[in-house]
Parts: sequence; C-alpha cells; structure tokens
Amino acid sequence: MARWEPGAQQRLEAAAWELFGEVGFAEATVPAITARAGLTTRTFFRYFADKREVLFAGDEGYVERVADLVRTAPADLAPFELVRQGLATLAVREFEGRRPQLRARNQIVATDEGLRERDLLKQAALVSAIEEALAARGSDPLTATLAARTSVAIFGTAIGRWLGADDERTLSEHLQETLDAFGAFAQAQPTR
Amino acid sequence: MARWEPGAQQRLEAAAWELFGEVGFAEATVPAITARAGLTTRTFFRYFADKREVLFAGDEGYVERVADLVRTAPADLAPFELVRQGLATLAVREFEGRRPQLRARNQIVATDEGLRERDLLKQAALVSAIEEALAARGSDPLTATLAARTSVAIFGTAIGRWLGADDERTLSEHLQETLDAFGAFAQAQPTR
Repeated sequence: MARWEPGAQQRLEAAAWELFGEVGFAEATVPAITARAGLTTRTFFRYFADKREVLFAGDEGYVERVADLVRTAPADLAPFELVRQGLATLAVREFEGRRPQLRARNQIVATDEGLRERDLLKQAALVSAIEEALAARGSDPLTATLAARTSVAIFGTAIGRWLGADDERTLSEHLQETLDAFGAFAQAQPTR
Repeated sequence: MARWEPGAQQRLEAAAWELFGEVGFAEATVPAITARAGLTTRTFFRYFADKREVLFAGDEGYVERVADLVRTAPADLAPFELVRQGLATLAVREFEGRRPQLRARNQIVATDEGLRERDLLKQAALVSAIEEALAARGSDPLTATLAARTSVAIFGTAIGRWLGADDERTLSEHLQETLDAFGAFAQAQPTR
C-alpha cells in the first residue's frame, strides 16, 4: 500500500527535474524518478497523472488567478491600463525568481510536439478566460478579444526574452521594455 | 491500380464536405467519402494523408505566401503600416468569398482537440514566419516578435468575427473595424 510520505510531491519533483537534466525528458522514466526519490511509482501516480504533469506543477489555478485579477481590477481602469497593471502584478507574483526552472521547462517543451500543443492549448484557455473576465466587467466584445490576445502576446514576448537573456534583468524590467516597444509599434499607425 | 481521374481531388473534397455536414467529421469515413465520390480509397490517399488533410486543403503554402508579403513590402513601411496593408491584402487574396467553407471547417475544428492543436501549431508557425521575415528586413527582434504576434491576433479576431457574423459584411470591413478597435485600445495607454 502507498502510505503518506512527508514532502513526497516535492521529493518527486526534485528527482524528476534532476533526471530531466541528466538524461533528458524522454529518457527519464517514472520508475527511475521514483527510485531516485526513494518512493514507489504508486506514490508518484497519487500526485501526478503522468510524467508531463511534473513539468506543469505549480501552474494549477493560474488561469483562474489571472481571471480574478481582471475581475477585481478598479472599475474605471481602461483596458490597456488594466493589462499593463495586471501583467506587472503577474510578473512579480507568479514568475520572478523562477527563471532556472521555467527555462528548463521551456527547453523540454520545445523538444516535444505533444508538450508544445499542450502549452498552446493552455495559452488559448488563458486568452478565453481573460476575454470573458473583461466582457464581464463591461468591455465590448471586440475590445475584450483584442485586449486578451494582446496581453497574452505581450506577456509571452516578455517572458521569452527574460528566459532567453544572459543578463540578470528581472521579468518586470523585460516587461516594461516590451510594453514600451508595443506602444511605439502600435502608435506608429497613421491617423486616418 | 489507381488511375488518373480528372478532377479527383475536387470530387473527393466535395464528397467529404457533404459527408462532414451530414454525419459529422468523426463519422465520415474515408471509404464513405470515396464511395460518394465514385473513387477508390487508394485514389483518396494519393491526394490526402488522412481525412484531416481535407479540412486544410487550400492552405498549402499559406505561411510562405504571408512571409513573402512581408519580405516584398516597400522598405520604408513602418511595421504597423506593413501589418495593416498586409492583412488587407491577405483578406482579399486568401479569404473573401470562402466564408461558408471556412465556417464549416471552424465548427469541425472546435469539436476535436487534435484538430484544435493542429490549428494552434499552424498559428504558431505563422507567427514565427512573420517574425523571421520582419527581422530579415531589419526590424529589431523585439518589434518583430510583437508585430508578428499582434498581426496574427488582429487577423484571427477579424476572421472570427466575420465567420460568426450574421450579416453580409466582408472580411475587409471586419478587419477595418478590428484595426480601429485595436488602435483605440493601444492608444489609450497613458504617456509616461
């Protein structure tokens, strides 16, 4: 019988990440992960549906937290200002300090088509949740759709640059740079 | 032996779309499609790798054509103006007049997770191709990434509204409305 193991989930995650780094994601089997953690495969499957789940541990409820941020924003914020403040909050609450782990995950996701698809589906779910939360606070549907897609595009760009950078700049700094570049891009349109 | 059949591909596509409409995508088998077209399954597989390919017939080379549009745009166009003109061109060249077929395809894609993933991967490939083409004409990498993601977001929004609309407005009209709403959204940011 699998019994309760203190810190089992954390030990499994740590063992999995070590193995992913050593032998690659494809070669790291669940038995090898559990052996390294000193636990049984049965214990593994109490915490994770499969090996892929380990990569996304910590993401539970992320979409819901983002939607909450939109719902609880001051009513008088214009959509773009809401996006700007929301992304700044998310950067600090959910991402800063996690660069090595997120970088390792991204490298694994890039090598596996199934994982890339899962990542894209998650992004699409995020866009839908933001869109609905904006519409619920009274944005017209077209603006809600554009704001949702744009905010995910801006944040994805900032995160990609932060993960790819050699320097020690924070995500918040990359986000500000990305927002500035977006402003320059979008405001370069001619007045009609 | 499969022999050359005049118009075989068109007959197979027409038969497939009829069946998708009548019995649904999942229930429409390749033998049923070929029987309706009066052709063999062997002929089907000369034109399509599988049933899903029928849904995406006509898309071959789309990503390349979009990238070409970016590459051949006048050198002095600002990125946003390039996006605006490029999307207007694509709307007319690739989409206008195809609403019933694209609407039917979208309904099928929405019901099948594998097809949704394929669609998302295609969009991601499109973003990468635009990004590379913009960088090749001298855009800085950050602007290239933002412009690529933003243009796909704007176009996807306009196409979604066009396919979902009850009226007879063209995609070009929906695109103009979407670009105007994007401008209002993006320009509402406070100056810093």
